[in-house]
Amino acid sequence: MTTAHITFDKTGDKIAGRVRNMRSSAVRDLFSAAVSDDVISLSGGMPDVSLLPASAIRKATKAAFDDQRTVALQYGATNGRVDTRQVFCDLMRDIGVRCNPDNILLTSGAQQALDLIAKTFIDPGDIILAEGPTYLGALQAFSAYQPDIRCIPFDEEGMRMDLLEEELKRIGKDNPRLKFCYTIPNFQNPGGVTMSSERRKRLLELAKEYNFMVIEDDPYGRLRYEGGHMIPLKALDDDVIYLGTISKVFAPGLRIGWIAAPRSVLARINLVKQGTDLCGSSFDQVVAEHYFTDTPWQKTLQKFVTTYGERRDAMLEALEEYFPPEATWTHPEGGFFVWVTLPPYVDTGAMLPEALDAGVTYVPGDSFFPDGKTGKNSMRINFSYETPENITEAIRRLAKVIEGRLELYRIFIEAGVIEAPTLTDGSKSLKKSSAQDVDSETQEAPAASPSTTDTSSSPAEAKKGE
Amino acid sequence: MTTAHITFDKTGDKIAGRVRNMRSSAVRDLFSAAVSDDVISLSGGMPDVSLLPASAIRKATKAAFDDQRTVALQYGATNGRVDTRQVFCDLMRDIGVRCNPDNILLTSGAQQALDLIAKTFIDPGDIILAEGPTYLGALQAFSAYQPDIRCIPFDEEGMRMDLLEEELKRIGKDNPRLKFCYTIPNFQNPGGVTMSSERRKRLLELAKEYNFMVIEDDPYGRLRYEGGHMIPLKALDDDVIYLGTISKVFAPGLRIGWIAAPRSVLARINLVKQGTDLCGSSFDQVVAEHYFTDTPWQKTLQKFVTTYGERRDAMLEALEEYFPPEATWTHPEGGFFVWVTLPPYVDTGAMLPEALDAGVTYVPGDSFFPDGKTGKNSMRINFSYETPENITEAIRRLAKVIEGRLELYRIFIEAGVIEAPTLTDGSKSLKKSSAQDVDSETQEAPAASPSTTDTSSSPAEAKKGE
Repeated sequence: MTTAHITFDKTGDKIAGRVRNMRSSAVRDLFSAAVSDDVISLSGGMPDVSLLPASAIRKATKAAFDDQRTVALQYGATNGRVDTRQVFCDLMRDIGVRCNPDNILLTSGAQQALDLIAKTFIDPGDIILAEGPTYLGALQAFSAYQPDIRCIPFDEEGMRMDLLEEELKRIGKDNPRLKFCYTIPNFQNPGGVTMSSERRKRLLELAKEYNFMVIEDDPYGRLRYEGGHMIPLKALDDDVIYLGTISKVFAPGLRIGWIAAPRSVLARINLVKQGTDLCGSSFDQVVAEHYFTDTPWQKTLQKFVTTYGERRDAMLEALEEYFPPEATWTHPEGGFFVWVTLPPYVDTGAMLPEALDAGVTYVPGDSFFPDGKTGKNSMRINFSYETPENITEAIRRLAKVIEGRLELYRIFIEAGVIEAPTLTDGSKSLKKSSAQDVDSETQEAPAASPSTTDTSSSPAEAKKGE
Repeated sequence: MTTAHITFDKTGDKIAGRVRNMRSSAVRDLFSAAVSDDVISLSGGMPDVSLLPASAIRKATKAAFDDQRTVALQYGATNGRVDTRQVFCDLMRDIGVRCNPDNILLTSGAQQALDLIAKTFIDPGDIILAEGPTYLGALQAFSAYQPDIRCIPFDEEGMRMDLLEEELKRIGKDNPRLKFCYTIPNFQNPGGVTMSSERRKRLLELAKEYNFMVIEDDPYGRLRYEGGHMIPLKALDDDVIYLGTISKVFAPGLRIGWIAAPRSVLARINLVKQGTDLCGSSFDQVVAEHYFTDTPWQKTLQKFVTTYGERRDAMLEALEEYFPPEATWTHPEGGFFVWVTLPPYVDTGAMLPEALDAGVTYVPGDSFFPDGKTGKNSMRINFSYETPENITEAIRRLAKVIEGRLELYRIFIEAGVIEAPTLTDGSKSLKKSSAQDVDSETQEAPAASPSTTDTSSSPAEAKKGE
């Protein structure tokens, strides 16, 4: 009565509904491509851990293999070591948030925090609000629990509160399906934009008025290259659920993030975490704790800030120099990413193999929208990992690939086969306009150089001589 | 229009359905109690990491803070470092399983493997089979995805295949709701029993016949104190999904487990893992890899085996000496646990505070059943963590607490207020009878000393002089 030998399809009928529509992360898929020596990767989101001093790592690690060994090697509490939680309270005090270890739960990177929050709060069909585009890891974490994710466009001042309010009116007050708003207020991933003080206050007002939780994801807050510190949402309202991580201020190889939240919220998340992993790595917690207490980590952080700031400058300068006038992009004051918007007829996903051939990678914009369709004419480019020289070269290569696409379309436009997209002004940067608005703007206004079809005098080439 | 200040209840209306019925782990809750100096804990499941040589930990850690530093501190692949996966292939080859790194996915302890498998395969209402009682961490992991868990009793030869087949007939062939059978064939947690070769083969036959996956959880396989090695299910059938962990052969403080499975299964789990934590700890992976390549880990494992074997002997001897004739227990050939069954009128959950007062803890049996009701007259006791002296003392204390309960019931029985439970024979050990059968047996046979109400001549006290 036994059936035939099991084939590739055997478990195909076993998988859960939540998995059927899961998409692989474009970033993950590109990691392997980016390994090739002659390709410059602008697709990752990796910190440059080679900037960490060897002596600091040795010092931080010592306790874990020496006097705190039996603790580091043993199971720990589900919410993490109290001494490590205290260290993160101290880090948060620096940025204006007061809390104590009881308000902290350690996670395996902030990614696990996203999964645990989704697992704790999302029933299928529940409504989640987020910037659109938003962090694709958050989309992946949330999507597993099958919510209805509503994206709110941003501009250079962060999530647009007028559009959020419009969406909230559609959802209605005290709608039991509305669970939370997920936001990355500082140097958003992938947008690079920062939410203004006024909008932070407004978001918290709307949260009370419409009864939803606010999840503040802040991986990049301490990586600011210009402008002044912005007060976290969590400092303005203790009900905010704040997500921290050591991935960008120390190292992502140790998987340590944390959730700062009211105790009643943490009690529920803690219960969910028990079944998810029992506890995090005691070893990593001991190492992280000693990194922030026994080493000159602020000095190292300053090295990160200086280095990434120079790389950002290199990227913005190269964009100005090489990118065509049809392109617009954000000007991040910190973080890791620039968000580029191209004319609506350019599909950055379709363009990616060509870019890879030219020796550069990026992440197509549709990866950052839950429908996988919006944002096809945009891309995220990273400046934290490569040298300024490589960044400049990568942007030069990318500009050439884009230029090739644009020229093709310019021929079609001239021949009247497709309609000419339009730009509202000559500025190439995205200022006070929403990410989605850019699409409509470029569809309405005249293209900067619709008449040129001569490759030798394309805008990007001409720009070089400026 | 803003609402009143947020109270404790604020997020109460936000939590997902899957969380509403979650119970906290009794083991976890007892961890804090067990910390007290005068309490001997038989409730945990911790290895004794103090047995690990300091020199080995230093050696294993060196690469992570030295020459492999930039790899150890950076994000890694979602499925883990290939070199670390190769190490686990080598470990599995020792126990008769052949695979290569493509068949391995690293997890944050085997607990995360349980969560990922559940997340990948379980839709609400799906049927899961498992031993009953079974590992409570598995119940927690699975329950979050709301399956219908059917428990199959075990006896000293492991899960009872006759009862499994009865259940499968009720479920029906090719029932799309039937997803997998979860089993811990070696030194089961909490039962301590090991599945016989015949039953292993029968389980795999039934899996083909009724079309369900087999999840083999094997944390204790290498910790055998008597008898010969049993061939893993995975070695008999490559479709088996095998879960390994370093928690018991090295250290649980580094969260490293693995799933060995066909590539098609791992591809799906890998996709689910991306959104769950991006990747595991590269740092821990580098340390684990070097522990198994640069240190005399087999010698250390032998130290674990010798030490735990002595502790098991101490526990079994103390049980014989101190426990009343109404109690039965399993005789594990390896692993960490003994499963004790008391007469049906004893509620081990209600008895726990009394035991804690007497300076001993255990885990009440109902923690290991999905309904939280079955098994109330049983308990799991651990012998891996305490010294033989402490184990003997703990069992003596526990026997006294049990004796107190039994005497009370003996009075009731003598007065005819409750019916006398019965024992089928004079043996105190559980032999070839299912865990559930024990309950009915004790309800049917005459109690060993139903007439004695004199505390000075209770069976346990009398036993001391034997």
